[in-house]
Amino acid sequence: MQLSNRITNITKGGSDGWDVFYKARAMKNAGQDILELTIGEHDRKTDAQILRAMYDSAATGNTGYASVPGMQPLREAIAKRVEARTGVATTFENIIVTPGGQAALFATHMAVLDPGDRALYLDPYYATYPGTLRAAGAVDVPIETRPENDFQPTRDELAVSAKGARSLLINSPNNPTGVVYSQDTMQLICDVARENDLWLISDEVYDTQIWEGEHRTPRAFAGMEERTLVIGSMSKSHAMTGSRVGWIVAPRVVVPRLIDLSTSTTYGVPGFIQEAALFALNQGETLETDVGAPFQRRRLLAYETLKGTNAVRLVPSGGAMYLMLDIRPTGLSGEDFALALLDAEKIAVMPGESFGRAAAGHIRVAMTIDDDRFITALTRLVAFAQSLTA
Amino acid sequence: MQLSNRITNITKGGSDGWDVFYKARAMKNAGQDILELTIGEHDRKTDAQILRAMYDSAATGNTGYASVPGMQPLREAIAKRVEARTGVATTFENIIVTPGGQAALFATHMAVLDPGDRALYLDPYYATYPGTLRAAGAVDVPIETRPENDFQPTRDELAVSAKGARSLLINSPNNPTGVVYSQDTMQLICDVARENDLWLISDEVYDTQIWEGEHRTPRAFAGMEERTLVIGSMSKSHAMTGSRVGWIVAPRVVVPRLIDLSTSTTYGVPGFIQEAALFALNQGETLETDVGAPFQRRRLLAYETLKGTNAVRLVPSGGAMYLMLDIRPTGLSGEDFALALLDAEKIAVMPGESFGRAAAGHIRVAMTIDDDRFITALTRLVAFAQSLTA
Repeated sequence: MQLSNRITNITKGGSDGWDVFYKARAMKNAGQDILELTIGEHDRKTDAQILRAMYDSAATGNTGYASVPGMQPLREAIAKRVEARTGVATTFENIIVTPGGQAALFATHMAVLDPGDRALYLDPYYATYPGTLRAAGAVDVPIETRPENDFQPTRDELAVSAKGARSLLINSPNNPTGVVYSQDTMQLICDVARENDLWLISDEVYDTQIWEGEHRTPRAFAGMEERTLVIGSMSKSHAMTGSRVGWIVAPRVVVPRLIDLSTSTTYGVPGFIQEAALFALNQGETLETDVGAPFQRRRLLAYETLKGTNAVRLVPSGGAMYLMLDIRPTGLSGEDFALALLDAEKIAVMPGESFGRAAAGHIRVAMTIDDDRFITALTRLVAFAQSLTA
Repeated sequence: MQLSNRITNITKGGSDGWDVFYKARAMKNAGQDILELTIGEHDRKTDAQILRAMYDSAATGNTGYASVPGMQPLREAIAKRVEARTGVATTFENIIVTPGGQAALFATHMAVLDPGDRALYLDPYYATYPGTLRAAGAVDVPIETRPENDFQPTRDELAVSAKGARSLLINSPNNPTGVVYSQDTMQLICDVARENDLWLISDEVYDTQIWEGEHRTPRAFAGMEERTLVIGSMSKSHAMTGSRVGWIVAPRVVVPRLIDLSTSTTYGVPGFIQEAALFALNQGETLETDVGAPFQRRRLLAYETLKGTNAVRLVPSGGAMYLMLDIRPTGLSGEDFALALLDAEKIAVMPGESFGRAAAGHIRVAMTIDDDRFITALTRLVAFAQSLTA
């Protein structure tokens, strides 16, 4: 029996680029002590109070179908937060709650793309991007950014692909690079979107993790609100990855159509999880700062540890829980370096190639293990790189 | 800014047929005592023990990303249950866990349909079916069944639409009719699917609610396993509607592609909800029987109450939590009857027209209020119908 072209095209039958990750997990499961700097998951659990709020909601009877767009108090809390952080007037009618940021990413592309439409995204990219665009039936078109520009796109890079496209997906702070787009970069992204009548889909799930500079949302730029769809999530900001709760910020006229889509694709988010998210948002910035603090701290430790080496170069990072290291001085590809590092030092990192062509010769380091082990890992990683260049 | 044709087509801009429901809710919120027989939601909450299992899982640290296909013990428990209930050999490799039955319904259609493919479903139908097929980019083709056949499809009805179609969606026990397909009906559905090389998508979320006859899955019929995708859910069987946890049973070769799709659309189901589902399944049939018992009991009460009236005719029902009443002797449409009943008697039911053209002149009664109020409502409903025919 023949499956749809759409579903068989999601991975195009190729490798998913996570070989190093799986090999490291297998070694760990076999009892080896592996320093894992691979995945974007906090080394802390969801706060006990948030879980208690979830349980209290469920135990007092909130176990039936929840409103598909999300409960109004949660939509209002998200709108208020968005407005406070961006200065753009936002009400609950601009918000739909989704079962996680990935569902929001899929829904936004379903909303603006018909099958065969060209959908742009910037390379390097979060691993699910190309598959998500293909799942929506689009032709996915990566735009390669360059290490020499710290992976910020230029006008030329954007313009050459924008003609005839329908949407552009961006992500700042960026996974995998940790780069935060500058005011100039964001302005030119907005200009290109307007000039080419593109929908701009802005994945801002790391918006609370800014270590240098400031977070900018394209929705706040002149003339952009009507063409911008913003993806948010509780996963990274509140260490709630496993709760699967996120949202879309959209023009008011778009939200009813997104509700139609949610009715057909997921039928909403558990009410008790929505109550937990509302409780978490009501804790204000203290909790968000607390959740981000380890990454801010470890980033500074990394800068210190990497000072003076020529074997690896740190891509100037401004946010998120990752660092991107240029290991081209070693002469190896990111993948070969990562495999060799795993074998020799029992340190697992992600090859840049797992996130597209642009990050070839790089590795992504997730700052998601405790400070001491993090410094140990980086120190050994630098010595290993040094030994290859010597 | 232009949205995709796909998303604007989901509802085709028309009424969603839930006017009576919303009117009843508004009257209730305004303080009126309304007898609501509208929605498919139990008049009990999720069991406290299940919620406790969920909380224990979360509180002991299961708050990170869960495995996208579902945790293996849950996939194994579902497989074991499916095998025990159907006799078809099933392993965890045939199962993917989804965030609810609706997500499973969408995913199955995404998996087998490309944009523009013809997707069949039987009318009357569960309200989200046409929109779900359109969200997947398909051309949705309803097949009208007839009241005189108790809404079971005939070979002719199926054959006329099957040529050139790619999939057929069925639902037994059926929402909205409560009908359980006979052995003959299921056999001819399977024959037509095989003869026309159709994927058969079988929504079996009411499979534990059988009051007469027996549940039959097309997956157990000769030559059908390779072309059948079964949708299951904890919502109806375990009163866990709000937990959003369901699954797909599929040929082993299909599951990896469904995992690709889940990675792109939802990124899995919260681990603590999966633990709750596993706990619930491990309670065995006792809990399922207990959850279904009120509907079994109320169905018999309804048969008793409706005995002897000619103003309404009960469609012979075999399962689920609904009864379909033929009110054509009153001369009214289902919608006009439902609105008049709400105004005159403060009783809310769903017009048959909300579920397609085939159920015109009918109303759906959900057996989801306590026995006393249920009998009161039915008694008054019969008297009201009688007054219209007199």
